[in-house]
Amino acid sequence: MAGYANKTPEELRMEAEKLLARFNNLRQENLKLDISRGKPSAAQLDLVSDILTVLTDKSECIVNGTDSRNYGELAGLPCARAYWADVLGCKPSQTFVGGNASLTLMYDLIARGYSHGLKDSPRPWCKEEKIKFLCPSPGYDRHFRITESFGFELITVPMTPDGPDMDMVEELVKDAAVKGIWCVPKFSNPQGYTYSEETVDRFANLKPAAPDFVIMWDNAYCVHEFEGEFQPFRDIIALCAEAGRPNMIYEFASTSKITYPGAGISVLATSEENIAYWLKLVGAQTISYDKVNQLRHVRYLQNKEHTLQLMKKHSTIMGPKFEMVLKMLRGELTNKGIAHWHHPQGGYFVCVAAMPGTAKRTLELCQKLGVTFTPAGATYPYGVDPQDSMIRIAPSLPPIKELQLAMEAFCVSLKLAALEKHLGISFDI
Amino acid sequence: MAGYANKTPEELRMEAEKLLARFNNLRQENLKLDISRGKPSAAQLDLVSDILTVLTDKSECIVNGTDSRNYGELAGLPCARAYWADVLGCKPSQTFVGGNASLTLMYDLIARGYSHGLKDSPRPWCKEEKIKFLCPSPGYDRHFRITESFGFELITVPMTPDGPDMDMVEELVKDAAVKGIWCVPKFSNPQGYTYSEETVDRFANLKPAAPDFVIMWDNAYCVHEFEGEFQPFRDIIALCAEAGRPNMIYEFASTSKITYPGAGISVLATSEENIAYWLKLVGAQTISYDKVNQLRHVRYLQNKEHTLQLMKKHSTIMGPKFEMVLKMLRGELTNKGIAHWHHPQGGYFVCVAAMPGTAKRTLELCQKLGVTFTPAGATYPYGVDPQDSMIRIAPSLPPIKELQLAMEAFCVSLKLAALEKHLGISFDI
Repeated sequence: MAGYANKTPEELRMEAEKLLARFNNLRQENLKLDISRGKPSAAQLDLVSDILTVLTDKSECIVNGTDSRNYGELAGLPCARAYWADVLGCKPSQTFVGGNASLTLMYDLIARGYSHGLKDSPRPWCKEEKIKFLCPSPGYDRHFRITESFGFELITVPMTPDGPDMDMVEELVKDAAVKGIWCVPKFSNPQGYTYSEETVDRFANLKPAAPDFVIMWDNAYCVHEFEGEFQPFRDIIALCAEAGRPNMIYEFASTSKITYPGAGISVLATSEENIAYWLKLVGAQTISYDKVNQLRHVRYLQNKEHTLQLMKKHSTIMGPKFEMVLKMLRGELTNKGIAHWHHPQGGYFVCVAAMPGTAKRTLELCQKLGVTFTPAGATYPYGVDPQDSMIRIAPSLPPIKELQLAMEAFCVSLKLAALEKHLGISFDI
Repeated sequence: MAGYANKTPEELRMEAEKLLARFNNLRQENLKLDISRGKPSAAQLDLVSDILTVLTDKSECIVNGTDSRNYGELAGLPCARAYWADVLGCKPSQTFVGGNASLTLMYDLIARGYSHGLKDSPRPWCKEEKIKFLCPSPGYDRHFRITESFGFELITVPMTPDGPDMDMVEELVKDAAVKGIWCVPKFSNPQGYTYSEETVDRFANLKPAAPDFVIMWDNAYCVHEFEGEFQPFRDIIALCAEAGRPNMIYEFASTSKITYPGAGISVLATSEENIAYWLKLVGAQTISYDKVNQLRHVRYLQNKEHTLQLMKKHSTIMGPKFEMVLKMLRGELTNKGIAHWHHPQGGYFVCVAAMPGTAKRTLELCQKLGVTFTPAGATYPYGVDPQDSMIRIAPSLPPIKELQLAMEAFCVSLKLAALEKHLGISFDI
């Protein structure tokens, strides 16, 4: 089938009529679906119920002489640090195990940079005239929101299938006001791209003008394949050390999408020098994080190998949902010149690049059908997609039947929005 | 027995000889005791082991339609908010349930004041020329450390048996640079004083010049009697609202000394307006706190009444330890004019006011006997007790036999330090 651009207005109007009929049929369904956030489904949560009974007796709360129930061990239980070192491929001494959210660790790191300065800061960031932060986009709205909330200037860096545009990154970091960059190196949010070997090398070898420049390396989907075998990743902390800037890197991960999103454990991994400095800062904020939950997780997840076995089970639930989403996109939108997307092997999202100027309208039409998406623009700094094109689909939460209806609503809406653009009209719906 | 001040040098030297003999006997014991921090004992932790099995099935994780395992409910599970409202005597809508540490909530509140400003701040505190904070002393070192870490000027306000010196507080808050005050209103850390009705009224009726002045009302020991019946306390949030400054008050509490110190839940309670503002700030920092642990606590603790029953059990372990400490202080130190102290009914500490200029030396001697205390001065801003007098005793952790030895070491050391002072010499020990 030829692209919309090659069709006559008459052909486009005929196409529109068919789509409007489908739209009205869908409206009869009175849908109420939400595929806006990357929430695991109840079936995934049910997979890990054994974690609720892995610590049931007081004697089990004591590990190598340390009572996980009492105060202490600010950096985390040694066994929890060892667990994360195994998963991330770094050293236990390079890890700090936090509470239930890696997002909080990221926020707190930026907040301490702002109020106190980081390890190599000449002064706290709040004393700088201007702070800029690089935001590869489309990206994760909650990342951008953190740096926006501190009043930093957010600079958009385009994403490519190999990762952020590194020519641009290398150029921008020559500005000493640029203090950091947000990264999701594996199965990026939202496109599902994995940074290429070259991109990772160029990150490790960055020579930013700011001595306290931070790479916020959010390895949120480090073991989150939903298709195919586990894809190993390199130890970015070692790479940065080899390149001579060990304190530039902060890696983050959590069990939010391994066990429970609200009740997991998180990690910050960085150079030992940074860990020592961080412990001084965080020592004013808390006595220790929840070590009972750390121990629960170590007993349950055991190690990387065992965690990967659990992730295989997650993939049996996640895989078919993504397969369905991608199949519908192919079936409905291929070769029309109105949308393209990447087929990811892991992560939590599919990102559709709709025809410029049609993303908002597409989601507006979806909303009329009762289907809620992440707001258009959310994946860009300040919530503004200059092309009005990117739409993030989060297939994980709804059951597959509902997902199919949501995707039909999406494809019909996207095509109608594209037809409006081509015809220069607005359908009265 | 007459006080040391009324004795002749000869009598003092005879007293010293006896004490030096006891000191040397104690030294033979090769003690290694730590009564420096208010850590619950293993016996107390063992009291609450049933909390480990209160949630063992996935179906139990769902409460009133909300799945505690998944993202959401930023302000905390409604049942957890209701629990804290019951304990504190405020409204559920005035509560925010956090993670495992109320200290983190306090730190984060101050940190947000610094970086973003609080609800009624004209500007973020980091943009002010100078910030001052009131520190009733002796007080809690971790409180003071938070405000010190942000570079605020700490102003010492003397404590009295009725609470902070309110004449002084009312005077100091006329300075708009004074942005807040640290309070432990019930069983204060370290003296165990409970603020009088008048003190509480005067707090509620404070009219600080700074529109964003905060009372940091750390109700850490709100249900922590170890002797006698539960002592009710008034709802400070309602009192501040009645007095016309509803946004001035932030109350904190946690289950750290009810269930597990490392793995409990915490609460911030304040006006609804403040809660709404706080949710906007904290929404950038996290998606939600650990609701599985919140639910575990609600199922286990149930309500205030049931919590008080548990606290009775804690008191059967804590009570005898405090009784022993107070008995030894009475037996060894009464009527010598070298120390005085308050007999608290709850909390975690006994605070001994030694003869001015002898606290450091007392603890130095204790250290020689292998007994570690909270460093002298720690209960004052910047860790400096201008009188070198206050010593905090934390009897909760060691078994009672060890505690008895530690207290003997303490009393002997304190008396030797006083004798040195009176005689103007240093014993060669």
